[in-house]
Amino acid sequence: MTNKIAYLGPRGSFAEAALKASGALDSGAEAVPTANVLAALDAVRAGDVDAALVPIENSVEGSVSVTLDELSNGKRLVIVDEVVLPVEFSLLVRPGTDLASIKNITTHPHAQAQVRRWIDQNVPEAAYIPSMSTASAAESLIAEPSLFDAAVAQEIAAEIYGLEVLASGIGDNPDASTRFVLVQLPGEIPAATGADKTTLSLFMRENHPGALMEILTEFVVRGIDLTRLESRPTKKSLGDYYFSVDLEGHVDDLRVSEALMGLHRVCSDVRFLGSYPRHDGREAHVRPGVTDLDFDSALIWLNKLKGKS
Amino acid sequence: MTNKIAYLGPRGSFAEAALKASGALDSGAEAVPTANVLAALDAVRAGDVDAALVPIENSVEGSVSVTLDELSNGKRLVIVDEVVLPVEFSLLVRPGTDLASIKNITTHPHAQAQVRRWIDQNVPEAAYIPSMSTASAAESLIAEPSLFDAAVAQEIAAEIYGLEVLASGIGDNPDASTRFVLVQLPGEIPAATGADKTTLSLFMRENHPGALMEILTEFVVRGIDLTRLESRPTKKSLGDYYFSVDLEGHVDDLRVSEALMGLHRVCSDVRFLGSYPRHDGREAHVRPGVTDLDFDSALIWLNKLKGKS
Amino acid sequence: MTNKIAYLGPRGSFAEAALKASGALDSGAEAVPTANVLAALDAVRAGDVDAALVPIENSVEGSVSVTLDELSNGKRLVIVDEVVLPVEFSLLVRPGTDLASIKNITTHPHAQAQVRRWIDQNVPEAAYIPSMSTASAAESLIAEPSLFDAAVAQEIAAEIYGLEVLASGIGDNPDASTRFVLVQLPGEIPAATGADKTTLSLFMRENHPGALMEILTEFVVRGIDLTRLESRPTKKSLGDYYFSVDLEGHVDDLRVSEALMGLHRVCSDVRFLGSYPRHDGREAHVRPGVTDLDFDSALIWLNKLKGKS
Amino acid sequence: MTNKIAYLGPRGSFAEAALKASGALDSGAEAVPTANVLAALDAVRAGDVDAALVPIENSVEGSVSVTLDELSNGKRLVIVDEVVLPVEFSLLVRPGTDLASIKNITTHPHAQAQVRRWIDQNVPEAAYIPSMSTASAAESLIAEPSLFDAAVAQEIAAEIYGLEVLASGIGDNPDASTRFVLVQLPGEIPAATGADKTTLSLFMRENHPGALMEILTEFVVRGIDLTRLESRPTKKSLGDYYFSVDLEGHVDDLRVSEALMGLHRVCSDVRFLGSYPRHDGREAHVRPGVTDLDFDSALIWLNKLKGKS
Repeated sequence: MTNKIAYLGPRGSFAEAALKASGALDSGAEAVPTANVLAALDAVRAGDVDAALVPIENSVEGSVSVTLDELSNGKRLVIVDEVVLPVEFSLLVRPGTDLASIKNITTHPHAQAQVRRWIDQNVPEAAYIPSMSTASAAESLIAEPSLFDAAVAQEIAAEIYGLEVLASGIGDNPDASTRFVLVQLPGEIPAATGADKTTLSLFMRENHPGALMEILTEFVVRGIDLTRLESRPTKKSLGDYYFSVDLEGHVDDLRVSEALMGLHRVCSDVRFLGSYPRHDGREAHVRPGVTDLDFDSALIWLNKLKGKS
Repeated sequence: MTNKIAYLGPRGSFAEAALKASGALDSGAEAVPTANVLAALDAVRAGDVDAALVPIENSVEGSVSVTLDELSNGKRLVIVDEVVLPVEFSLLVRPGTDLASIKNITTHPHAQAQVRRWIDQNVPEAAYIPSMSTASAAESLIAEPSLFDAAVAQEIAAEIYGLEVLASGIGDNPDASTRFVLVQLPGEIPAATGADKTTLSLFMRENHPGALMEILTEFVVRGIDLTRLESRPTKKSLGDYYFSVDLEGHVDDLRVSEALMGLHRVCSDVRFLGSYPRHDGREAHVRPGVTDLDFDSALIWLNKLKGKS
Repeated sequence: MTNKIAYLGPRGSFAEAALKASGALDSGAEAVPTANVLAALDAVRAGDVDAALVPIENSVEGSVSVTLDELSNGKRLVIVDEVVLPVEFSLLVRPGTDLASIKNITTHPHAQAQVRRWIDQNVPEAAYIPSMSTASAAESLIAEPSLFDAAVAQEIAAEIYGLEVLASGIGDNPDASTRFVLVQLPGEIPAATGADKTTLSLFMRENHPGALMEILTEFVVRGIDLTRLESRPTKKSLGDYYFSVDLEGHVDDLRVSEALMGLHRVCSDVRFLGSYPRHDGREAHVRPGVTDLDFDSALIWLNKLKGKS
Repeated sequence: MTNKIAYLGPRGSFAEAALKASGALDSGAEAVPTANVLAALDAVRAGDVDAALVPIENSVEGSVSVTLDELSNGKRLVIVDEVVLPVEFSLLVRPGTDLASIKNITTHPHAQAQVRRWIDQNVPEAAYIPSMSTASAAESLIAEPSLFDAAVAQEIAAEIYGLEVLASGIGDNPDASTRFVLVQLPGEIPAATGADKTTLSLFMRENHPGALMEILTEFVVRGIDLTRLESRPTKKSLGDYYFSVDLEGHVDDLRVSEALMGLHRVCSDVRFLGSYPRHDGREAHVRPGVTDLDFDSALIWLNKLKGKS
């Protein structure tokens, strides 16, 4: 059904690995690398591709701001799936290069931040030059002439670009992982599984903490747990924020439906960015009083009071 | 339509004055005095009368516990109207009695509490003997033989029982008033007027303050103001309470509907005791975001998200 | 040390039984019956007695309004101890009277409310006449001539007044109990025991639910549990309340100290009515983060930050 | 007094402009450029410089994660001043270059994000190559040989590096601004001015929303407004956050002192990052009940209750 899926390229990127892991390519879809997150999202918006896989959160660096911001503005897109991939960094070089001869290293700033300790201990003298992505760093080693001696990237890029792996697992944090989301134009919402997430962008009428308390109360009163909460600037003036949240549950869960309507009344804008199955399949914790059954019972009770059947 | 209305008697009682003021007798209904609040309510429950007017709150003495408790237990009744009457106390005697010859005074303990200062200043030597009501105190002056010299009651009782008004307006608090409610068996709920109250009894799963915070949050999150909140013992053990509340709004207001369903899920029991027009016609203050229009817009928005029309 | 203790009389009252049970008479103090609660409190205020024992709460009827209101107004008094007594009701008559010959029964309205079921089943035809207290009901049986055939009172009154016990344990609720408090002029506060209560009357600047939420938050944020919460009219106008609360803890507990100061800032008036040992010796549940040790650590940390030792 | 101040270099950077604007150099201190934020902070920690000026927040891109994270970990530093600078972007080239001949543009990714629209409209064909900073982008134009045709940087860099300004004010958002903070080793806290901010990093015992509500309550109950709230990953696992907040007020304000102690009890760790005068001199809004006077009165009242003077 889905024929083309954009991903944050170039070939050999983490996003490509995530796309393969997601199973989205299993039905024969074509993977289309793009230069950046915005290009991937715009390809979906323009109908050039059927979906895009982009990173949204990293356990070390935090949210991927550009993804949150681009999803929160412009034509609405929705998340239909998520995939979480362990982050593995390797030091790649042209065949024959050894540690001692590395004068500079290129990689994406986020990657650089995650291998700082290893670099300090093993190639302390090397200069660092930022790249647009880890894969483009790897690719730049085979340019003629190349300005760079080494790249921090994932191992798969070595194979793609004919490079050598000088060291593997060089990340400072062995448990680091990145979460990617698969986005599409709004259409049918994936069916509720009991183990779902819903992603929202919430724009406030006025600023917090009062406003944030108000928003949190809409969740708390309906027993909804948040798995991610980010404040992001609206890019208007310092101190003007919106909130990006992931919650446990599906828009078809009655507690989530009611909370969404409450937020719609409280916020100046609520952008619904999709309900989709959790990557880990962990079922939502739903406290007594806010199950669908409780909501149904309450409605039946109320209608009876009002003399309706 | 309504043919018989019970009230807290005997004849000449405040409740009778309230019943006349309420307009409930205008269509020719018969007023039926009862010995106490429970008898009035039970007459409604048994179908012996069509409605009952009972006191529920006094600005000086507070809630009328027996009314709250009897409405909160047993067969459900609903309030369909309220009336608030200024409290006026007079000192009644048999014709010819003067202040100096008054050895004792009888009245209901609530009335006694409200004329304490005047009595201390004007008949400090008189003993006080409690009666079942102010009207029965007046009535007891004409018993043969009568044990009492004077009664604190409302002026109308003087006319009914052939007594003399020795002093008027003897209440310590000139602004005192009592609120009465007209109750019936559950049936059609009076239509929403924009200036309504709703009365509830809320039974908790566990005790406060956590539980009370939870209840209040259900109101606050939907912008609902309370005009009365009482904790009352459930009569099981010390420290086991239920809450009796009046809120601004009608069960047909969407913010009230949603709050009622929320309370139904949170409480072990919610007893709906009616939605009815306020005696003072003051319109409910409804903050932006919780009007019916806001609820409707939110529902339309949500359904559109979900792909429903 | 304490030489005279007033109690709600007359002799043979529940309050007398409570006073004996409290141990306050063990050191030889004289028990002084008074006609009503106000008289007992005023005797303390005037210095005529050293303390007074008055009922404050009943598991069936709820708070004793007159006690709450009189403690919340006028010259300040403080509670230094509490005692809880099971309520036992008996039907007393003059020797030789049998059930069949009882035409009327006198007792206090609260007592009448608690024996209603038994009376309905056993002496359904008897009229009810209210008395000032259960003990005065018993006493009135030996007046010459007596207007009454039977009294509902506690068994001890039979002995005192030479009456016969026709039936015992006639209360509808076998677990009913009444809580009494021993009040004095403000002086040394009883030392903290780890199992204490503190009683407060809180007067609001504006009305709830916002205001009540604000008050509850002052407790919740410091992990303080309430064991009683009552709203009481201030006697100014309908809907103008103050709150009477009992909380777990002692004014010398740091979490209670801070909460009291918070309430002092939020309320128009906070009346401190004493910290005293719980009758049941149950230790306060203090969650991690609000023990005295936690408060002390936080202060040491703050002072270090500020460069103070 | 302060002799050396590090700043995020190289020469010609925004941070240098901010440092000049801050007045910190007025007394003759030497400005020391560093390669990155961490180097600037570490120079302070090591005692190599007396202070450092680093960016903390941008109105378009949001918080500067590396600054927040580096201040929240390692040896504690404190903020003693802040300065906010309007962001102005210019397109710099080597003298003689015109728009048509620009093949590629280099600048820092944050800057690139803020001039995207202008670039798309005016040099849509140019490739983008990331640099470590805007100033280093400008500097790289004069390298021999230079790989780049143009740089997005501030105008001052043109003068420093002998470049030409092809276009000014090319930022997509004309109101964009960046906030810098001056940090030192902990020492004397700048005196309260009535218009102060306090910066904190809050580490939770467990995750939100419950935990975040708890934290916000500590502020709300004491009437403290937040001007910034960020969640940041602790870099342990996805979904494990700490909160970085700026609040209105000074640690010497009693409401702030009490809130800090409350947070200390609730959080697993509270890192105090300084109280300092606001750049805009706007006085804190302090609601009635939480002024220092209110805190003092409450303490006096409490001590009087307890019998202390």
